[in-house]
Amino acid sequence: MQYKELDVDSMLEFIQDLEVIQEYFGSDELSVAEIGDGNLNYVYIVKSKQDPKKALIVKQAVEYLRCVGEEYALSRERMNFEIRALKKFYHYLPSFVPKIYFESEDMSLVIMQYLGDHEIMRKGLIEKTIYPNFSEHISTYLAFTLFYTSSLYLQSDKKRELIDEFNKNTQLCKLTEDFVFTTAYMEHDTNDNENVESNPDAKKLFEDMEFKSKILNLKYKFMTQTDCLVHGDLHTGSIMLNQDETFVIDPEFAFIGPFGFDIGALVANLVNSYIHHSVVTKDEEFKNYLLETIKEVLELFEVKFLELWDKQKESALLVDDFLDEDSLISFKSEFMKNILRDSIGFAGAKIARRVFGVAGVEEIRGIKDKVLKQKAEVLALRISREFVMKYENLKNTEEVLEMIKNAG
Amino acid sequence: MQYKELDVDSMLEFIQDLEVIQEYFGSDELSVAEIGDGNLNYVYIVKSKQDPKKALIVKQAVEYLRCVGEEYALSRERMNFEIRALKKFYHYLPSFVPKIYFESEDMSLVIMQYLGDHEIMRKGLIEKTIYPNFSEHISTYLAFTLFYTSSLYLQSDKKRELIDEFNKNTQLCKLTEDFVFTTAYMEHDTNDNENVESNPDAKKLFEDMEFKSKILNLKYKFMTQTDCLVHGDLHTGSIMLNQDETFVIDPEFAFIGPFGFDIGALVANLVNSYIHHSVVTKDEEFKNYLLETIKEVLELFEVKFLELWDKQKESALLVDDFLDEDSLISFKSEFMKNILRDSIGFAGAKIARRVFGVAGVEEIRGIKDKVLKQKAEVLALRISREFVMKYENLKNTEEVLEMIKNAG
Repeated sequence: MQYKELDVDSMLEFIQDLEVIQEYFGSDELSVAEIGDGNLNYVYIVKSKQDPKKALIVKQAVEYLRCVGEEYALSRERMNFEIRALKKFYHYLPSFVPKIYFESEDMSLVIMQYLGDHEIMRKGLIEKTIYPNFSEHISTYLAFTLFYTSSLYLQSDKKRELIDEFNKNTQLCKLTEDFVFTTAYMEHDTNDNENVESNPDAKKLFEDMEFKSKILNLKYKFMTQTDCLVHGDLHTGSIMLNQDETFVIDPEFAFIGPFGFDIGALVANLVNSYIHHSVVTKDEEFKNYLLETIKEVLELFEVKFLELWDKQKESALLVDDFLDEDSLISFKSEFMKNILRDSIGFAGAKIARRVFGVAGVEEIRGIKDKVLKQKAEVLALRISREFVMKYENLKNTEEVLEMIKNAG
Repeated sequence: MQYKELDVDSMLEFIQDLEVIQEYFGSDELSVAEIGDGNLNYVYIVKSKQDPKKALIVKQAVEYLRCVGEEYALSRERMNFEIRALKKFYHYLPSFVPKIYFESEDMSLVIMQYLGDHEIMRKGLIEKTIYPNFSEHISTYLAFTLFYTSSLYLQSDKKRELIDEFNKNTQLCKLTEDFVFTTAYMEHDTNDNENVESNPDAKKLFEDMEFKSKILNLKYKFMTQTDCLVHGDLHTGSIMLNQDETFVIDPEFAFIGPFGFDIGALVANLVNSYIHHSVVTKDEEFKNYLLETIKEVLELFEVKFLELWDKQKESALLVDDFLDEDSLISFKSEFMKNILRDSIGFAGAKIARRVFGVAGVEEIRGIKDKVLKQKAEVLALRISREFVMKYENLKNTEEVLEMIKNAG
């Protein structure tokens, strides 16, 4: 199959010939609409005209960064990594990852389950929606995906095969290296420069060498710590959910990286929502729900990760009986503390980069009132700084919550 | 070309057809002899009968671990990594790496410069040979090979290409994971069990959970920290030298690993020699030379690595002007301290594994007198323990020397 960038019409033509589409929709007439609002790809919904509840999602990568335009070239190979990651994660957690119906690396295209009854978490949180099962679900997702792709579960040969599969997601890793760890802390033309210009908070951030040195350490960790397969962009815009179900989507940034990176991204985005509500709605109850969620996610993750680890006596890292029971418990406990630390470090970077960098978040950049927006920015920078300056010495999740609450 | 395991006769036949051999030796008659005493491969010397100074080395990998025998299967693919690493290192440092005349990944074979005027460093040190240029040479070798293959020099895409080239050196990395970080600290049939049995020092080591937990951390670093291309087995048996020249050979264990791994291997083997002379020759002058060499290697490495780094304003890690001058200096200084720390941690593991594990070193396992040998073992275990328990908090090379001297 030769690659061709599709539009609504050619997409309809393309999919009508596919067996899976015929199986799924039978003889129904189909409609196609483009619904993508992401930064990278085009996303289409294909619906049955007879039964609009019958629908699938088609996602195609194009040769450029959608949110910037055709002048920002970006290889469509990224879809290969998204497909590979979706399949891996689905394998471990079929109830948290959309089902794939069709994939083509040639066409940089994937057809998958339509999540019609689910909403993007970022929007839900802005609207103060409480998701009673979220912490339970996402902690399972994190524990399973991170553990089963790590050297704590895999043998060395399998781990190296996994590295082979994801090592060349070069361009999207580079986006993170640039946008999360570099350009958001210095003068740069990709920044939100309307806000940056003559903004004392931006000036202060860009000149905060102590903070930026720590960011550089985190960038180095990001680039060189090959713990496990991470989603790579696990913000609340990559989560679709409702009261019962939680799905993680869009793993095109997937790569072999640090344990803490996905956890950190998630914490950062829960904090962004907390900041929004601290400044805009001032809803203490919802703020507490968010804090509680952060605590639960971190603590449940640890419990579940350790449960998986305890079942695994042999791996690349461990052979049975190398350590005695007590020493193994201490070793694991220290190991988990380091994951927590890295997570909070990465969360700090992820919060700060959204303030002045490219691709701000709705919760903060979307605040219409200028005074409130600036208040939110200051709060974000304060929490981020606490996280980044102190993550290496954190002892427990209580300290994380204290840092968030005390910054307010 | 189809792979065929060669012997002296078929080797002669094979090389006589090669253009490079005809060029190098002209019409001279050739003799071939097997001279390998390593653990893995067969090594032949090809000489001109007319002028025995004209000679080349031919190295061929076989499908098993030579030192154990045909029952220990080991893919000959390892030669691909050796060839790739030799070429990379030669590229940066043609005066410290043997020249390659011919290579064939199909035949798992490489023909290279014969180092007839050089001796294996391990043997030289046992005989109390002083090498006046060694610290200077090896610190250059380490600084260049480690820096130029790291994210401090390379851009991210080039770094990922390098990872692709070496990621699948799975089997030899696994040998290190097993023999350096695992089996040498527990009951295992590959150990030197004649010595292990009813040996209280072995029992103490195998039950030292505090020490073994730290070893496990070092193993994890080895498996997941992708700083740069390392030689992977840089002991004094992989160094051939004389008063003027120093060559590093045998990089078949090359992989993308931690900065500190090669430095640690080298320090460990200098310490092994120090232990030998502490117990056997009691030559204080030579012991001081060894201590001085350790200090020089560590300090010169740092100076030279920083010199290269200072010239490199842009890399995967850094963009120019991200940090101000002072902060960059502090950042680099902290970075170098971490390399020193990891080096000493790895050195500790490398010393301990030689005591009871497979493949002991001549300096210690080769001591004929049982009492002296046990003394050397105890000293090795004591220094190793100091290194492994304290490496994370080291401040400078002085502390390293103190640990060695105080253990004696």
